[in-house]
Amino acid sequence: MDTNFFNTRKTVRSYSGKPIDPKLMSQMIEAAACAPTTGGMQLYSVVVTTDENVKQQLAPCHFNQPMVTEAPAVLTFCADFNRFCKWCHQSNATPGFNNFESFVSALLDATVFAQQFNTIAELNGLGCCYIGTTTYNAKAIAEVLSLPQMVIPVVTITVGYPSDESDNQPKAERLPVGAIMHAEKYTDYATDDISEIYREKEAMEVNKQFVKENGKETLAQVFTDIRYPKETSETFSRLYYDFIASQGFEFPK
Amino acid sequence: MDTNFFNTRKTVRSYSGKPIDPKLMSQMIEAAACAPTTGGMQLYSVVVTTDENVKQQLAPCHFNQPMVTEAPAVLTFCADFNRFCKWCHQSNATPGFNNFESFVSALLDATVFAQQFNTIAELNGLGCCYIGTTTYNAKAIAEVLSLPQMVIPVVTITVGYPSDESDNQPKAERLPVGAIMHAEKYTDYATDDISEIYREKEAMEVNKQFVKENGKETLAQVFTDIRYPKETSETFSRLYYDFIASQGFEFPK
Repeated sequence: MDTNFFNTRKTVRSYSGKPIDPKLMSQMIEAAACAPTTGGMQLYSVVVTTDENVKQQLAPCHFNQPMVTEAPAVLTFCADFNRFCKWCHQSNATPGFNNFESFVSALLDATVFAQQFNTIAELNGLGCCYIGTTTYNAKAIAEVLSLPQMVIPVVTITVGYPSDESDNQPKAERLPVGAIMHAEKYTDYATDDISEIYREKEAMEVNKQFVKENGKETLAQVFTDIRYPKETSETFSRLYYDFIASQGFEFPK
Repeated sequence: MDTNFFNTRKTVRSYSGKPIDPKLMSQMIEAAACAPTTGGMQLYSVVVTTDENVKQQLAPCHFNQPMVTEAPAVLTFCADFNRFCKWCHQSNATPGFNNFESFVSALLDATVFAQQFNTIAELNGLGCCYIGTTTYNAKAIAEVLSLPQMVIPVVTITVGYPSDESDNQPKAERLPVGAIMHAEKYTDYATDDISEIYREKEAMEVNKQFVKENGKETLAQVFTDIRYPKETSETFSRLYYDFIASQGFEFPK
């Protein structure tokens, strides 16, 4: 198999009205669950939301990004130690998973599972969009979806058949492969390397426009000042950290 | 495309001596990098280790699991804000990514990228194995691979052409799809649900043998007492937490 499918994939944010056959959805999730998982434990769950009312409740958690209500299905992938711990308790075993390492294992499991679903859905002609706001408003999402202790939302993917407009969307820009790949050991970047790596990205018309619209001098400033300002990241750090702890995973003191 | 490939995939821990063409490796990594990434930032790097000496140095970090030295390539996927922050500094922008939320974004990015690589490698006839010890000994791995500040190893995948023995390895067992999928909202598990979900896993001969060999009463006890004891998880929690902080990502106090 060549890699052309993977090289040309793109995020799809606009969907046709066509619903997803529930049987197909179930088959795709079943196949995605054959992805690697820590110690065979499957430390994840996915909540498949298709009901208009529940999507309306989720929408503000995702800052009302239109994909959440317009996509036929919204999938919330969660790190889940609840099911496994319940099994332990019923099996005369004492689980010791209320810690940071266990949370990270479940986070990795949920993410690997989500990405395998994303790939399988795309190979089935569906379009997907990761929603980055899941960790920002995890507590509100947990309330809407009735998530119990030891379950943390990690990644949300909206899924649907692509609309005609989505064809016009450009493929995402990516850095040259040499920028992300290191041979044998990590070679740190010299000033000239960084200039070279980001040259093409900075030269793109769409990015120049982005800088201008935002009244900035450089593309990097759009990221640091507009899209991901320090204060916002620190606020969301605090919220996610506190929520993870309140759901039962203790951080080291 | 049907999902059969994904349903029948399996982890490959035993490799033939055949090396991987460096051009193929680069192409697979380039294709994997087209996977979704937070805000188009590509907050990851991968270190491709093929040199015998470096593999020997990595081996003890992974408790000398034989795949690390026997696989033709060992890929260490890292959450990486170093490259992006260097670009910000050179672009008259002040990065504010030294926090938990940013670390989680980079962790998700690295994991999505790793899993996309895993899938592409498998579709190219290679076999892969995730090594779960990466987060346990992150500091030692960082030393071997010369990882700078703001770079955290997250996932290691060993890659190679499957040996003949690997054909005999069974496909990994998975819970019924209904166990991991929730409709609309999360439905918590009743006692009977848990019994039903884990029935097949407990009944497998290989797992019964596993319980017996370890002198335990139940399969769950093998996980809680032997494979993932509380004390070990807490030790690794402390180590990973401290390492993440020492690399430049501050946790909320």
